[in-house]
Amino acid sequence: MKDFHDAAKGGLSASQLETVLREVGAERYHNRHPYHHRMVAGTLSKGELQAWALNRYCYQAVIPRKDASVLARAEDPAFRAEWRKRIEDHDGEDGWSGGIARWLKLATGLGLPADMVKSQRLALPATRFAVGAYLNFCAQRPLLEAVASSLTELFSPVIIGERVPAMLAKYDYVTKETLAYFDKRPEQASRDSDFALAYVLQHADTTERQQSVIDALVFKCDVLWAMLDALMHAYGEAGHIPPGAFRPEEGR
Amino acid sequence: MKDFHDAAKGGLSASQLETVLREVGAERYHNRHPYHHRMVAGTLSKGELQAWALNRYCYQAVIPRKDASVLARAEDPAFRAEWRKRIEDHDGEDGWSGGIARWLKLATGLGLPADMVKSQRLALPATRFAVGAYLNFCAQRPLLEAVASSLTELFSPVIIGERVPAMLAKYDYVTKETLAYFDKRPEQASRDSDFALAYVLQHADTTERQQSVIDALVFKCDVLWAMLDALMHAYGEAGHIPPGAFRPEEGR
Repeated sequence: MKDFHDAAKGGLSASQLETVLREVGAERYHNRHPYHHRMVAGTLSKGELQAWALNRYCYQAVIPRKDASVLARAEDPAFRAEWRKRIEDHDGEDGWSGGIARWLKLATGLGLPADMVKSQRLALPATRFAVGAYLNFCAQRPLLEAVASSLTELFSPVIIGERVPAMLAKYDYVTKETLAYFDKRPEQASRDSDFALAYVLQHADTTERQQSVIDALVFKCDVLWAMLDALMHAYGEAGHIPPGAFRPEEGR
Repeated sequence: MKDFHDAAKGGLSASQLETVLREVGAERYHNRHPYHHRMVAGTLSKGELQAWALNRYCYQAVIPRKDASVLARAEDPAFRAEWRKRIEDHDGEDGWSGGIARWLKLATGLGLPADMVKSQRLALPATRFAVGAYLNFCAQRPLLEAVASSLTELFSPVIIGERVPAMLAKYDYVTKETLAYFDKRPEQASRDSDFALAYVLQHADTTERQQSVIDALVFKCDVLWAMLDALMHAYGEAGHIPPGAFRPEEGR
């Protein structure tokens, strides 16, 4: 396991920085997590898939707020016009016709009641803490780091490409309609991450800033990883569901 | 498992509210967690104890900051004078002669290098997210809720009373000096929680405020529980240590 703590030491060229950022993804993005491996292998129970959808909803629901935090601190109108698309993608025309609504459809397609999912009340506390950390990071850290933390999207077309065909093939109750969320994401994520990467490579112009954007991407990978760790601990074989959280047998 | 979501429905007397708060502790405080059970049973490995000390350090280190957040919003000088003692207890005379320094001694007594512990760099991301959630909760929620979230101290003399004798008896490398942190805590915690409980019972004077203090205590129990869940997942039998975190075999 590579340690990225000193990865910018001595200063990097833009292309070297891009290489390091892609290495972070190759080593720490959540497509390396056992819960993802089990998902694509078809060995998750329906309860485990439901728990994934229910908990991940908390993440989806907070994305437009974290993007608004970024927007609120961006002084360049052209930057704002570009970044604004992310909010539009997730909220849609009326708040419930974008990515969040499509994720809700994924959760209900797996048999969960919409109200229960939207209330977020049965999500794992660890999910809430990880999502809250991401929201706070984007609100409190410098704009450059907030932008860099979005760069996990560089790697999301790959994970979606693994996830969707496997889910359709391996779980007979998963339909194409249920997974409609993922139809638009690869294109949106590529557009967004191209923009964010170009911004980061241009603005990370000191060794210190280069290290800060590497750290931001590591942090974001940690958020996604911790979310799957919490799911695995709660709903995996040992089944250590914390007090008050979703229990599959009661939740259907 | 009791659901405390509507526990204040219809309004409670002060003594009924105290009963509910004590029920929250009885059901959700982390003395019910399997990691604690294993600690007092003597079945944790040295690496698991080290990981506990290392991660819990992040929590200890943030306590004076969360108390300063409370202090910053307290308008009553008498309240501030009382609450200030918490900061003094943890920082001591010079920053390194109070509870944080004693926790560091606990960690080094278990064989960890002080610098590694203080840097917090090898702590689990999930620990950082839980601790950050607590810090943000106390900084952002109403003063009454921040005070209520401290009420886990009502239950800490019990867990310390279980933990200390068991650790001394069951782990031959644990000494009384290593556990000096716990010598002063029961008395401090009783003083602090008496004050906080009286404050909460007096100021939670509407059904809504009563529910908010119950929710605050549930939230705080979730923080402590999630910290042990993360330790158990990473360092328990299955051993799913996330990327970048402390690895016992390398950390001694």
